[in-house]
Amino acid sequence: MKTTNKLKIFNDPIYGFITIPSELLFDLVEHSYFQRLRRISQMGMSYMVYPGAHHTRFHHALGCMHLMQKAVQSLRFKGVAISDDEEEALYIAILLHDVGHGPFSHAMEHSIVDAVSHEEISLLFMEQLNIEFHGRLSLAIQIFKGEYARKFMNQLVSGQLDMDRADYLKRDSFYTGVAEGNINSERIITMLNVKNDELVVEEKGIYSVEKFLVARRLMYWQAYLHKTSLVAEQLLIRVLQRAKEVVNTDDSLKASTALMYFLTHKVTRDEFTKEVLTTFSLLDDYDVVSAMKEWQYHNDVVLAKLCTMLLNRDLLKIKLKKQPINQEKVSQKKEEIAKEMDIPYDLARYFVFSGEIQNQAYNQEKQNIHILTKNGKVVDVVRASDQLNLEALSKPVTKYFICYPKG
Amino acid sequence: MKTTNKLKIFNDPIYGFITIPSELLFDLVEHSYFQRLRRISQMGMSYMVYPGAHHTRFHHALGCMHLMQKAVQSLRFKGVAISDDEEEALYIAILLHDVGHGPFSHAMEHSIVDAVSHEEISLLFMEQLNIEFHGRLSLAIQIFKGEYARKFMNQLVSGQLDMDRADYLKRDSFYTGVAEGNINSERIITMLNVKNDELVVEEKGIYSVEKFLVARRLMYWQAYLHKTSLVAEQLLIRVLQRAKEVVNTDDSLKASTALMYFLTHKVTRDEFTKEVLTTFSLLDDYDVVSAMKEWQYHNDVVLAKLCTMLLNRDLLKIKLKKQPINQEKVSQKKEEIAKEMDIPYDLARYFVFSGEIQNQAYNQEKQNIHILTKNGKVVDVVRASDQLNLEALSKPVTKYFICYPKG
Amino acid sequence: MKTTNKLKIFNDPIYGFITIPSELLFDLVEHSYFQRLRRISQMGMSYMVYPGAHHTRFHHALGCMHLMQKAVQSLRFKGVAISDDEEEALYIAILLHDVGHGPFSHAMEHSIVDAVSHEEISLLFMEQLNIEFHGRLSLAIQIFKGEYARKFMNQLVSGQLDMDRADYLKRDSFYTGVAEGNINSERIITMLNVKNDELVVEEKGIYSVEKFLVARRLMYWQAYLHKTSLVAEQLLIRVLQRAKEVVNTDDSLKASTALMYFLTHKVTRDEFTKEVLTTFSLLDDYDVVSAMKEWQYHNDVVLAKLCTMLLNRDLLKIKLKKQPINQEKVSQKKEEIAKEMDIPYDLARYFVFSGEIQNQAYNQEKQNIHILTKNGKVVDVVRASDQLNLEALSKPVTKYFICYPKG
Amino acid sequence: MKTTNKLKIFNDPIYGFITIPSELLFDLVEHSYFQRLRRISQMGMSYMVYPGAHHTRFHHALGCMHLMQKAVQSLRFKGVAISDDEEEALYIAILLHDVGHGPFSHAMEHSIVDAVSHEEISLLFMEQLNIEFHGRLSLAIQIFKGEYARKFMNQLVSGQLDMDRADYLKRDSFYTGVAEGNINSERIITMLNVKNDELVVEEKGIYSVEKFLVARRLMYWQAYLHKTSLVAEQLLIRVLQRAKEVVNTDDSLKASTALMYFLTHKVTRDEFTKEVLTTFSLLDDYDVVSAMKEWQYHNDVVLAKLCTMLLNRDLLKIKLKKQPINQEKVSQKKEEIAKEMDIPYDLARYFVFSGEIQNQAYNQEKQNIHILTKNGKVVDVVRASDQLNLEALSKPVTKYFICYPKG
Repeated sequence: MKTTNKLKIFNDPIYGFITIPSELLFDLVEHSYFQRLRRISQMGMSYMVYPGAHHTRFHHALGCMHLMQKAVQSLRFKGVAISDDEEEALYIAILLHDVGHGPFSHAMEHSIVDAVSHEEISLLFMEQLNIEFHGRLSLAIQIFKGEYARKFMNQLVSGQLDMDRADYLKRDSFYTGVAEGNINSERIITMLNVKNDELVVEEKGIYSVEKFLVARRLMYWQAYLHKTSLVAEQLLIRVLQRAKEVVNTDDSLKASTALMYFLTHKVTRDEFTKEVLTTFSLLDDYDVVSAMKEWQYHNDVVLAKLCTMLLNRDLLKIKLKKQPINQEKVSQKKEEIAKEMDIPYDLARYFVFSGEIQNQAYNQEKQNIHILTKNGKVVDVVRASDQLNLEALSKPVTKYFICYPKG
Repeated sequence: MKTTNKLKIFNDPIYGFITIPSELLFDLVEHSYFQRLRRISQMGMSYMVYPGAHHTRFHHALGCMHLMQKAVQSLRFKGVAISDDEEEALYIAILLHDVGHGPFSHAMEHSIVDAVSHEEISLLFMEQLNIEFHGRLSLAIQIFKGEYARKFMNQLVSGQLDMDRADYLKRDSFYTGVAEGNINSERIITMLNVKNDELVVEEKGIYSVEKFLVARRLMYWQAYLHKTSLVAEQLLIRVLQRAKEVVNTDDSLKASTALMYFLTHKVTRDEFTKEVLTTFSLLDDYDVVSAMKEWQYHNDVVLAKLCTMLLNRDLLKIKLKKQPINQEKVSQKKEEIAKEMDIPYDLARYFVFSGEIQNQAYNQEKQNIHILTKNGKVVDVVRASDQLNLEALSKPVTKYFICYPKG
Repeated sequence: MKTTNKLKIFNDPIYGFITIPSELLFDLVEHSYFQRLRRISQMGMSYMVYPGAHHTRFHHALGCMHLMQKAVQSLRFKGVAISDDEEEALYIAILLHDVGHGPFSHAMEHSIVDAVSHEEISLLFMEQLNIEFHGRLSLAIQIFKGEYARKFMNQLVSGQLDMDRADYLKRDSFYTGVAEGNINSERIITMLNVKNDELVVEEKGIYSVEKFLVARRLMYWQAYLHKTSLVAEQLLIRVLQRAKEVVNTDDSLKASTALMYFLTHKVTRDEFTKEVLTTFSLLDDYDVVSAMKEWQYHNDVVLAKLCTMLLNRDLLKIKLKKQPINQEKVSQKKEEIAKEMDIPYDLARYFVFSGEIQNQAYNQEKQNIHILTKNGKVVDVVRASDQLNLEALSKPVTKYFICYPKG
Repeated sequence: MKTTNKLKIFNDPIYGFITIPSELLFDLVEHSYFQRLRRISQMGMSYMVYPGAHHTRFHHALGCMHLMQKAVQSLRFKGVAISDDEEEALYIAILLHDVGHGPFSHAMEHSIVDAVSHEEISLLFMEQLNIEFHGRLSLAIQIFKGEYARKFMNQLVSGQLDMDRADYLKRDSFYTGVAEGNINSERIITMLNVKNDELVVEEKGIYSVEKFLVARRLMYWQAYLHKTSLVAEQLLIRVLQRAKEVVNTDDSLKASTALMYFLTHKVTRDEFTKEVLTTFSLLDDYDVVSAMKEWQYHNDVVLAKLCTMLLNRDLLKIKLKKQPINQEKVSQKKEEIAKEMDIPYDLARYFVFSGEIQNQAYNQEKQNIHILTKNGKVVDVVRASDQLNLEALSKPVTKYFICYPKG
């Protein structure tokens, strides 16, 4: 790949150094769309449980690109042909795979733009950048959309063992200190191969895959779906929902220009024009937190209370159950709270609510992890394993939660 | 120390677990003054060089308290009497030693409240908390101010080998990935002792002290005074200075209530009333970044340009020199820039400027590191060392910088 | 616990520092029985696969004692009463639990003293030391034998979650570089509690237990039962068996005094007198390796060949299968080899052989891991888990191997 | 470089994976000369202080080769031409640079073969291997001897910043747990360049060089010259010297064939024939330790006592001084000991002795570290530094020791 004096090296506490492999990639990193990711935290509200978890999507995206470099190197070493154009396209696709995330990531998808996923927005950004860079992202976009003939390339970007997961599990484990999630990304990458244009793992890597699936499962329950992160995220969703209601009647509500746009417009996939995209590109965690800092003094008690709770980490009580929550209990709690807080019963839903969360360590039906046996056969990892625990891990686990104010 | 069900454990990727040792400390951690530190980054703008450096003063303060627990344990093991009250006071003093930091820490001291240091503000916060907690912080305040008879206690909070440095060097090294700064805090703490109410290091710890001083020197030049961090901080100072000017003539300038207060009031030490303190307690990194996000579209070109530079990390060029900068060269550059940007010469100072930075790994004159020899004598570490390199390290190093827009 | 100037601190790359907590423990560490463990490798022949795995049983035993100190501290903090005598006894019991290991540990149990386990010999050593130390090990011996009333103490020394496993998984993972086995011992210990004099894990620690069981399973298949370690160990057993045969007819066979004793005597449990124990205490890895270095030039071709193979790491080929090995194939291979090497068919068994290995990550029938739920109930971890994978892990996995010379 | 199915990957806890880059290198690793290094410990007797320090010269040599691969990659990336033949020669030279070490390394050079250095023996081994491999090591030997035109290649193998030091400091720090010695080898390698066929460090790497020199100094005083390692090594030298004396009068002294040869022959450089080399190739740590295990029961009290001391780690007392030891005090101590142990005065020298040790962190006179400034000039690191501490570090430090039996 051609290189210039625009080369840059980033320090990374996990991999040591991350190199930007080409001028085009350098220009993409420098672009304000990508620089915005410096202001989007990778783990949303998880820092409320794990005070070290302040790393950003910027850092994660660079880490993914670093691992993709390792993967290309390893696959080529095994004789898998990857052209220079394909190589660069892989780096672009993984670098930008999350560029469409909004503030606090998942919370936003349920409040600001509930009809549009972050993957769709990432694609919109890529297409916009493709115009700016005169079509040089076309191949990357094909790979990202899964439309490129060589299927394994899409699997490296978005699959059961993609570079996204390979980085985020390791990185989130590092910054939270939850050692359970620490996977050996480098080892897994060393074990990858390609058979019939599909990504496979060599047989001797089967224990690393097992470790990977277990680590992922544990990170879900100990970090991503930790009950404190969960309740914080739920509160954040409600802050934004409430703000949308309040703004209808109170046009003095303070918010940044970009945030105000999304509070006052219902944006669906079809309406996501270039102008909307530009506004979206100005939105990050800082808009939301600063707004909450103002709103904590707003005279809408619901909005003010929700904001205060989040800013001072004085959250609702949350209980996790293996069985669905009894809705009568929820109603009863709501009545109590409405009385106590002196608010209409209808508004109690902001402080008393239930829901469910689910995780499936390995989803056999969607996309498989294939093992390449020593005899050259390709089998699903569940069948290749010497134990039934992987089959067990492919069953989804559902938990139910109820939240309400502390005594 | 009495414990209750308010005990809490934090996950820390560095020490594993951090325990809150008493109910009072728990209440202080929960207080909104302290929770605010979750929104103050420890290393200011350094994440522009080291993308992992997003850790906060909240996390650092907890880390310091953890190390103080280790120090108390180690000193008691060696027979140093420390009462339960003194123990808790030490934890309080170190927990709150940085509570007075403003947004982006050091930048603020030169722009928002230039006449008041963060240590003074920390003390104001402590005194306010002391009222709220009915005098239970009195001993901690005495120790913090260096007015308590047992001098070593103040040295543990604020000295050459205090728990502050012991944590921040290790933590900043961890999050940046600059391995050069990684010190063995635990080992140093194990080597501490007390002689004549002064903190001393046992002779066998002398190499650890040497390592510590070198690590500190290297962290200064590779991280804290890294030229990119430096130029970013200088720009941030100028953003706030310019905003103060602009707000005089443009009362539509957007800013959070708290930030607006400090932009429009000159606050000296004497005027730092409880009300000012309350306003200050609402100020954090989010106010500043959000303001910049609005100001990048302001029609004052200087303010807008400075903000854009910081948000998109498109900074000024900076050169470091061993000799003072020729001021004629600065003037000449200013003229060029004024012309190029079509701004008055006077405003070119926002884009072209020079200055100096200094670091002294070990300052023998201010406060010494004392070594306790095997014969029971106390000597300065420079004299106890078997080599002259420590003497060399006690000479200050000065560098000079000039900043101006890229070609 | 009373302490004296005999206190000692060991550097440990894993835990930082390991402290010897009392004078008696110091004297036990200094004893030649314990110092011998410096010459017994922890992982036997595994260094042939993992060149870093040269750590010793000496280091492991110290590590276990360190973790036991953490466990005592944590349990006391939760209100579990542990007297000073019990505390010291726990440290002694775990320090000495492996003192009966012979050279290359498990290989020896199948060749030098095949009728006596290392646990039995550890007990013999403890009883001998108890005489030397005037009965001060009595309580430790009771705990070790499981005869002490407070059952959880034995479980800390020898159970599903004992300090032995907590150290060796972490340590072996560290020295081999097999990250899959790295467990968070400190976290698991923090989660331990005692209910009805039985060791239990608090409910929130359930994912750590799951991680622990998976890590253990992976370390078995990737390290302890790695096919190269396996074949090396099988060869070592055969070296010693062959030496026993050869010495019958060739009294010039060179060996250290201690090794010669065990080559020429059949030692059963009943014959393990104090004299035999003393001879055993002189035996370590060095006797065996030095003997092999001489024997590689012996004129018994079988013995010489086996030794050469091990010393130059030029081992037999090994194949692992999920099905039992066809014995006809073994016989056929033996015939080929006998011809090729020009040895009697009967001796071909030294170079062609089959066998089986088994591992069970969690054995529900032998000893359980109990979870203490938030409601105070005690349930088996398999029942407490939110997924069936732990049940799957409690099924034993068997593999079959065949070894024969390389083409 | 041509690769075959002889490729092999080693697990390394420090670098993750170490790859054998060619068939020839694979064959050299497999050779019994190199496999012998599995039985030579890297840090001699240091495990007596640092129980984790059991890593071997085998592992270190592989580590060096790994770093050399990184160096070649980095230099080529910067445009330094390195042919495929030169590349392989560099790997061979560094792989074999220590192959001539005897048991317990440095101790041996003062007892077994006192007239021949390990570097000379390494060269003899290389020349022997060159014959076996039909001249394919010729270029490697030229580089090793410093006779190849491109001087920087020799500097990578044996210079101030060679791959030997880059590995051993990091590795010894890792296995001992002495964090002070942990250097960032990868960063230093990234900073290397070549100017006028000499190895230089880019200016921005100057702090890494400073860190490296300080780390090296600290490892000398905290590990390599630690007083316990020192006294153990001195005792080991005396064990072998005494054995040489005893064997003159007692031909029943037990020792392995190889060790016996060196005890009974004075081997100078000229007499180091192929036969002697073959005998030397059979000698390793196991010969020496096994011999001591027999000799501890020998009737020569001096020999027996020295061996017992080492095996049970019951060493002499040692004192380090900044001033030379008063020889009268030594004589007096000898008289006391002769009386106490009931041995002739002349033999007391085995238990009472003095000596000196020296370390120089940076030797400006022998071989320099050159810094390549941004202007393209080459200057010595001492001149390029912004502080005088590097000049201070280039002054040698001498300490004096006296050893004698404990009270």
